[in-house]
Amino acid sequence: MTKNRIRIESINALKDHTIVQPKFVKTSVLSKLHHVHWSKPLQNIYIVKKPWNYNVRDAMIKVIEHLHTNYPSLKIIVNKTVADELWEEYKVNHKSTTSENSDDVVLYTGEIEDIVQKTDLIITLGGDGTILRAVSAFSNVNVPPVLSFSLGTLGFLLPFDFKSFESTFKNVYENKGQAIHRSRLECHLIRKENIQEEDPSMIHAMNDISLHRGSQPNLTALDIIIDNELLTTTTCDGVILSTPTGSTAYSLSAGGSISHPSVPCILLTPICPRSLSFRPLILPSTSHIILRINESNRNGSINLSIDGITQADMKPGDQIHVNSDKNGNGKISNDDTNSGIWCFARSEHDWTKDINELLGFNSSFRAQKQHHI
Amino acid sequence: MTKNRIRIESINALKDHTIVQPKFVKTSVLSKLHHVHWSKPLQNIYIVKKPWNYNVRDAMIKVIEHLHTNYPSLKIIVNKTVADELWEEYKVNHKSTTSENSDDVVLYTGEIEDIVQKTDLIITLGGDGTILRAVSAFSNVNVPPVLSFSLGTLGFLLPFDFKSFESTFKNVYENKGQAIHRSRLECHLIRKENIQEEDPSMIHAMNDISLHRGSQPNLTALDIIIDNELLTTTTCDGVILSTPTGSTAYSLSAGGSISHPSVPCILLTPICPRSLSFRPLILPSTSHIILRINESNRNGSINLSIDGITQADMKPGDQIHVNSDKNGNGKISNDDTNSGIWCFARSEHDWTKDINELLGFNSSFRAQKQHHI
Amino acid sequence: MTKNRIRIESINALKDHTIVQPKFVKTSVLSKLHHVHWSKPLQNIYIVKKPWNYNVRDAMIKVIEHLHTNYPSLKIIVNKTVADELWEEYKVNHKSTTSENSDDVVLYTGEIEDIVQKTDLIITLGGDGTILRAVSAFSNVNVPPVLSFSLGTLGFLLPFDFKSFESTFKNVYENKGQAIHRSRLECHLIRKENIQEEDPSMIHAMNDISLHRGSQPNLTALDIIIDNELLTTTTCDGVILSTPTGSTAYSLSAGGSISHPSVPCILLTPICPRSLSFRPLILPSTSHIILRINESNRNGSINLSIDGITQADMKPGDQIHVNSDKNGNGKISNDDTNSGIWCFARSEHDWTKDINELLGFNSSFRAQKQHHI
Amino acid sequence: MTKNRIRIESINALKDHTIVQPKFVKTSVLSKLHHVHWSKPLQNIYIVKKPWNYNVRDAMIKVIEHLHTNYPSLKIIVNKTVADELWEEYKVNHKSTTSENSDDVVLYTGEIEDIVQKTDLIITLGGDGTILRAVSAFSNVNVPPVLSFSLGTLGFLLPFDFKSFESTFKNVYENKGQAIHRSRLECHLIRKENIQEEDPSMIHAMNDISLHRGSQPNLTALDIIIDNELLTTTTCDGVILSTPTGSTAYSLSAGGSISHPSVPCILLTPICPRSLSFRPLILPSTSHIILRINESNRNGSINLSIDGITQADMKPGDQIHVNSDKNGNGKISNDDTNSGIWCFARSEHDWTKDINELLGFNSSFRAQKQHHI
Repeated sequence: MTKNRIRIESINALKDHTIVQPKFVKTSVLSKLHHVHWSKPLQNIYIVKKPWNYNVRDAMIKVIEHLHTNYPSLKIIVNKTVADELWEEYKVNHKSTTSENSDDVVLYTGEIEDIVQKTDLIITLGGDGTILRAVSAFSNVNVPPVLSFSLGTLGFLLPFDFKSFESTFKNVYENKGQAIHRSRLECHLIRKENIQEEDPSMIHAMNDISLHRGSQPNLTALDIIIDNELLTTTTCDGVILSTPTGSTAYSLSAGGSISHPSVPCILLTPICPRSLSFRPLILPSTSHIILRINESNRNGSINLSIDGITQADMKPGDQIHVNSDKNGNGKISNDDTNSGIWCFARSEHDWTKDINELLGFNSSFRAQKQHHI
Repeated sequence: MTKNRIRIESINALKDHTIVQPKFVKTSVLSKLHHVHWSKPLQNIYIVKKPWNYNVRDAMIKVIEHLHTNYPSLKIIVNKTVADELWEEYKVNHKSTTSENSDDVVLYTGEIEDIVQKTDLIITLGGDGTILRAVSAFSNVNVPPVLSFSLGTLGFLLPFDFKSFESTFKNVYENKGQAIHRSRLECHLIRKENIQEEDPSMIHAMNDISLHRGSQPNLTALDIIIDNELLTTTTCDGVILSTPTGSTAYSLSAGGSISHPSVPCILLTPICPRSLSFRPLILPSTSHIILRINESNRNGSINLSIDGITQADMKPGDQIHVNSDKNGNGKISNDDTNSGIWCFARSEHDWTKDINELLGFNSSFRAQKQHHI
Repeated sequence: MTKNRIRIESINALKDHTIVQPKFVKTSVLSKLHHVHWSKPLQNIYIVKKPWNYNVRDAMIKVIEHLHTNYPSLKIIVNKTVADELWEEYKVNHKSTTSENSDDVVLYTGEIEDIVQKTDLIITLGGDGTILRAVSAFSNVNVPPVLSFSLGTLGFLLPFDFKSFESTFKNVYENKGQAIHRSRLECHLIRKENIQEEDPSMIHAMNDISLHRGSQPNLTALDIIIDNELLTTTTCDGVILSTPTGSTAYSLSAGGSISHPSVPCILLTPICPRSLSFRPLILPSTSHIILRINESNRNGSINLSIDGITQADMKPGDQIHVNSDKNGNGKISNDDTNSGIWCFARSEHDWTKDINELLGFNSSFRAQKQHHI
Repeated sequence: MTKNRIRIESINALKDHTIVQPKFVKTSVLSKLHHVHWSKPLQNIYIVKKPWNYNVRDAMIKVIEHLHTNYPSLKIIVNKTVADELWEEYKVNHKSTTSENSDDVVLYTGEIEDIVQKTDLIITLGGDGTILRAVSAFSNVNVPPVLSFSLGTLGFLLPFDFKSFESTFKNVYENKGQAIHRSRLECHLIRKENIQEEDPSMIHAMNDISLHRGSQPNLTALDIIIDNELLTTTTCDGVILSTPTGSTAYSLSAGGSISHPSVPCILLTPICPRSLSFRPLILPSTSHIILRINESNRNGSINLSIDGITQADMKPGDQIHVNSDKNGNGKISNDDTNSGIWCFARSEHDWTKDINELLGFNSSFRAQKQHHI
């Protein structure tokens, strides 16, 4: 399949990403997309994949060899697991080497913190989960633009079919790519005993943050505080805070509206509330939201889940502080390129197509309109 | 196409339906269907169709000639419009006659009240609307069993494809047919000025009865009274009272649950209520429900609609009284065959198939489960 | 407070309940209530309370002494925990004795199976939970009528305020009580490895049976099979099967309709389904429903919960079979008194009052109707 | 009650509003409110009231006399109807005059176009409807800030109780007032026969724009086109396009989410759609939305309603074009003060308080949590 040999080198051999961030230029006044202009030629590309999956591995090898052949100046970064996997693969089907040769395929790898420092562009191969996992590493820094390819599975975060890889990448490389800005949520978990302290850690959510009673039989009593004002105390199975991107994920199942990803908002959707009148809420992206496990809770521990990944359990008195990682004024502009995530997109109409094709939005009945003769 | 000539005769030439009602025998203890046994051989068949539609007319001629040839003792009844239509048709493409001949196709017609007196079985050709219209004529009497054929359009009341007409009819004729019992609602409109009087008239609904503000800009204030107790006064666009059969019609659009047609209940579903807490209700089929246009209404007139047909407008102070036309004890048995409508069915699983195929019930997403990595 | 001494005796000293079941006579054709006529004078009364709660204990002592004084022929049964609790109480504040005295308050206790054999009437003191726990012991036998008193907490199963105990009990004793029939669900858990075998055990639900992913991060794939026909396979957090009585409990939180307890139906309500089109269903009470954990499940175990009590976890391939404990023909009559639960009620309108007062049904907005000028 | 005499003068005697627009300064980075600084002292105040209502008239007289006494340099504008009404009132209870006197209360009135040209501040007395009607006159120009007082009725647009008039007005006058920005929707109705032409006219909506079948029995087929892409064709009773301000009005009744008024979005909510999967949508405020009456419609005319006021009927082939009147970049800043409406507010937490107090958001059940024992 290939004549190239593979060589793994340390990520430390690479310079830091020099681009910082590309320029994002609105394609037109009312456009939801921005053109992505690299201020210097693209250099370091971090390729992420679902681990130990044959199908995806083959795709990755195609990507690596295509880039190696056609864009020799590009540096390809992978994480250690993928480096190991490819090393194994090349031993069997291709060739791998530890000695230098100018025609070798070189893969750079190392600690995730170092990868984060070097990456100019993230390419993901797999499903939405692969993307969520990839960007979750970029928690306290700018996230480089994300270029995602689907290998069969469909998803809102998967605009490009892998079959179009070569032309799609060429467009992106040549400053012809367009991207949509997706906000993220920041989540700070503050334990009851540390309530006065600054929280050092923070987790980002691209889709959603949820609290849930889990396997505990009792409902959860939660205080919902918005901008330092108690909105309500709810008795429920749980509560979801969602980005607009996540409005088609868990929030949708719980009854939330579908939001276009460009709306600067946070969706608050209850899960099985013990009330007839807890309608889902659309909050400004500038909101500061506290969810506090009410001390009256009979359940000892409540599940905290971020983008579907279970976190440490919460106890009565614990709270999470959540806000959008956008600038405070809620506007999207070049000044905000240091927040949220820029995802390359096919066209202005990706979302319209996706809610129809992926969700079956407004499927019409095959039955005739029987109630009107 | 046919060698038979047609002759139209008066319905009065026929004897009253002698069967009264067939026997309905449960196919098994837990079955939702009953076998339909004719106590005497089937005699008078009322065939109903959508008027002036070429496609349906051809189907009707096939039915008539098939019955004429294979079941010569059967008497075929049509309404006057259809009689005229077929007379025209036979003049051109076939032959029609006013003189008697033993091989003529004879169609009996007359006033609808007389048709109602004679009919042993109703056959409908068309859509759900054709059925609703056909049975609406049988408002204060037993409804004969209904055998419905679809000519392309799909619907919950259309179990049989017209292509299967010959075998399906044979089954029914030979006491092998199975039917499902569908309850109807009785609606009595009582004007404010006649509030003390007995209401002489009554309209039946197979699907639903709805009140709506129509084109009036203001919301409607409605009193909902159940079994002589005020349940609530609602400010809303309207209210729907639905049979379980109608639960997949207007009530569904307004947010109601989907009920199997065999559940002895009445669904009460609000239309755009000005409240967060008006959840749809499932009431016993024995309920007596009054919807009263509250005198405080700023709208002069409110639309009353029964099975999608607009009725006389209602004014503030007017009310409708609604109850199921079942026996008071809410049970379905041979004793109840004098209420509701027996509709021939394909199998026990018609409903399960229909909500999947006609409504797209629980369509799964093509997007992968993105909120769980 | 009292001069009586207490004495605890064995339940085995009592004769079996001789009444079998009282006669239930419909108060009128359209009534939802039945008069309860004891075929012989009431004899054995099982009094149930929330354990170790001072407030409820005082109420119980009042009940016991009132019955002892005014209905000396009645036998009072309590479970062992309550017997212990009262014994302790009487040691301190009253008197307890092991020697016989004609004026002693005698409490009978023993194994729960023996209590079940003897009880003619259940009296509960506490909340809805107390009732659910009390009747859950009567799982494979007739449940005696239930007379429930509220001690402050409110609930759909709590028609009577404890303050009215004396007059309410007198009514019941003198054949003037009225009761509503509430159906129960039977749940059979069948393990994958025992799929061919008859299930020996069965649990009854008065409110609901639910399956839920619990703390597992992945959604659950469930097959829903109705009357041996696959309705759908759903990807969801869980599914609730509810009696009409339970329609105001968990099913309501998950978006289900509110059903009057007299409607013979089973409500099937999804919890956070991964579909836009899984509308809640109303099924006939004669339905036989299988919920099967799809073998494709990535979650190792799924929570099964009955009336809010966690049961054994279910694994992929395991299934529950659920049906109403009514007779197969779905009718409520004297012949059905051997199924479901008869609960004494205040009036025909308990439900109408309760959904207004307990749920805040159709609360009107205090804001003026702003969208119509 | 008063010693002042009244005099009515022509609006043309006043200079145009000299302020153009005040400066709006964010109170803090995350604040949802802006301080309102008048660039020159306030001059022309347009006072609007519900016509011919005694209660409101007395309030208006208090306002007028308070302003006349304490802010003699202010010019008070009223519309012609109110001028007539007050003239009648003063004739009877006070004094009115046509001759000039320095101590007279002078009211300026004239054509609404001229009032629009002169007004620096709108004060409304009455309900939400009064505000909607007042601002609807300012359709193609900047709307001056609105200061609304409630006279008993409650509403989302009624932050101030009339009792606080004096102190509230003083705050506003002295540059201490805070305002929230509320976006409006622009609606262009384009007839089928004029589809190629520019639409000269435009109506603004502060709450919502809705299409509805009205009293027509058939459902409406509507094409929904977003940014020149067909989203879907829906068969429904109607569709609502709502501002976030209007999310608590008609959209809420139809099942929409509740949006904070500061979220830059447009809510699209279906009314009784004939689909299980038409979930409400949250669209960017930059969206250009077309609702087109599908030519297949069997209904001859469809109702168009804007802020609850019935407009001209629409016919098959007609369409409305709707967009937010914000700047295209969706940001709220001083540059956008020429769009939307600035409404004086009590505090940052008006919305949180209002959804609790006015809507009964998340009302807890009085019933105990019965499904968990």
